Amino acid sequence: MPKTVAIAGLGLIGGSLALRLVERGIRVVAWNHRETPYAKAQRMGIETVDRVEDLVLAHPDILILCTPLTTMEQVCSTLSRVWDANITLTDVGSVKRQVRASVERAGLGASYVGAHPMAGNEHSGFDAAYAGLLDDALWAITIDERSPLTRVQQLLALIVGALENRAIVLDDLTHDRAASLISHMPHVVATELANAMQSSPLRFVAQALAAGSWRDMTRVALTDPARTRAMVEEDGDTVAPLLRQIASDLLVMAEALESGETLASQEFFSFAQPYRNFRQEQCNQPKHDTELLHIEEEQWQEQLVALAFAGKQIQSLEGERGLGVNTVTAW
Amino acid sequence: MPKTVAIAGLGLIGGSLALRLVERGIRVVAWNHRETPYAKAQRMGIETVDRVEDLVLAHPDILILCTPLTTMEQVCSTLSRVWDANITLTDVGSVKRQVRASVERAGLGASYVGAHPMAGNEHSGFDAAYAGLLDDALWAITIDERSPLTRVQQLLALIVGALENRAIVLDDLTHDRAASLISHMPHVVATELANAMQSSPLRFVAQALAAGSWRDMTRVALTDPARTRAMVEEDGDTVAPLLRQIASDLLVMAEALESGETLASQEFFSFAQPYRNFRQEQCNQPKHDTELLHIEEEQWQEQLVALAFAGKQIQSLEGERGLGVNTVTAW
Repeated sequence: MPKTVAIAGLGLIGGSLALRLVERGIRVVAWNHRETPYAKAQRMGIETVDRVEDLVLAHPDILILCTPLTTMEQVCSTLSRVWDANITLTDVGSVKRQVRASVERAGLGASYVGAHPMAGNEHSGFDAAYAGLLDDALWAITIDERSPLTRVQQLLALIVGALENRAIVLDDLTHDRAASLISHMPHVVATELANAMQSSPLRFVAQALAAGSWRDMTRVALTDPARTRAMVEEDGDTVAPLLRQIASDLLVMAEALESGETLASQEFFSFAQPYRNFRQEQCNQPKHDTELLHIEEEQWQEQLVALAFAGKQIQSLEGERGLGVNTVTAW
Repeated sequence: MPKTVAIAGLGLIGGSLALRLVERGIRVVAWNHRETPYAKAQRMGIETVDRVEDLVLAHPDILILCTPLTTMEQVCSTLSRVWDANITLTDVGSVKRQVRASVERAGLGASYVGAHPMAGNEHSGFDAAYAGLLDDALWAITIDERSPLTRVQQLLALIVGALENRAIVLDDLTHDRAASLISHMPHVVATELANAMQSSPLRFVAQALAAGSWRDMTRVALTDPARTRAMVEEDGDTVAPLLRQIASDLLVMAEALESGETLASQEFFSFAQPYRNFRQEQCNQPKHDTELLHIEEEQWQEQLVALAFAGKQIQSLEGERGLGVNTVTAW
């Protein structure tokens, strides 16, 4: 369990993390690009520093980058001037290949393990932060072949130990591809539905008739399109092939409707039945089979990533090299 | 205001309609293909009859077909044997061209005005019915060039008078196209997202990371795919061109991401800004400018359909030929 955690960036995620760690009795030292939240943060038990490099001088066990993706390069460069190799560097960014590249360019690669907590809401800033934002969160920990196991274990101790969250371990590209499938690509599709509404000569009629399905499917198209665009472009090489796949399948379905090929239509609508059954089962009785695994000496990276592909999530650390693993998502 | 309303089909919509009309002091006579709900319906003030043709013999002002789309042909044919031209025939079906065709084949076209209340939920049957289901519902009234104004006014008296709901007037094809845009096509897109999840080698990883945007965009893909397929196929000729449009736009966006054409991407994400602004404005302060309109002697069909295209909804009947009209949806 870490004694001191440093947090760069007291926004929604950084602030919520800081508050939860303070609750758990861990010393938290934080820096923010503006001092605005400092008075409130101090009242809530968070120590604050004036310069980001002061975080290193506070001798934390772990330093977590919680600043926007666009600032990572600059922050890493500043930190590198005073870096202490005893500290484990991590982050909470939503696209992982970029962050690793910034860290590597700053010469901090040997200290780094990536992380991405699946938590958030439509608000931002320290005023919106609260410890409960992280309740039951799943974190993706991202590694490469050079990641040191001790640093991964240290991060796991923070996530499944101190925070009582869950974790899966992935390589950066797998993380970014999966994030495209469940978030970045659907954001493009939702935006396209809004575009179709905007371009329709029937739009006032259609909007009058619109109900729940339309509201839910276009909700994310109503958030700031510049932020969505930045997210999609950052992960563009994984979003584009998914868009091509969706377009191609929709054209097959259009052709089926035009030609009356009911077999093609039937196949389209039944294809995801295993997924529907899984979701139904998950509602009825979530699976919680726990197993104990031993982290292998060799190729532990492959071992941990394989767990994620099997739908298994790390729930606890057990002794020196043991992991408590639950099968939560498999169908 | 109608004195007696006959309802064929005591399901979720028919049952809820019957209960609301009883609340408003209107005599309701109902038939159902099975007698199962009769005892409960009678306790709640609804008269019941054994055969669908008995509805005609009860001398209602309006008879509302609330049976499934697939049964409309048969029910119309049975009713036609005992039909009384004093009765106005209407329905609550979700695809309007089909119903009119069934009504015409049964020789009941001169008595018919179509209707579709935008209300419902994921349940079905009389046990799920309740008067509040229709609270603040918008109805699409569907007409053609032969629809008699007196019957449209009679239906308006039911909808905006007795039920205190809102109405827009459309031709059948416009209704079916608009329903495709806001519901049938999005159901196909949601199903395709579920298909993409099912076919992905990363599906267990992606499902672990999935959060709010994925849940909302695939919600309707989790309902019975056979029912969705029937709805989409029934309206297939209006769904197919929308699918082609969506596919084509997604391919443009894929190309923009692949080539780094930020202008194309920028245009894609900003295109629906007027729609976003409208939705935002609607949240902040819904518009409720009311105006009084006089139904024209000639070409009143075109006049009423033009109102819908202008985003105006009928809220009240004012005197012999007056309408209270609100601008609710325009941007």
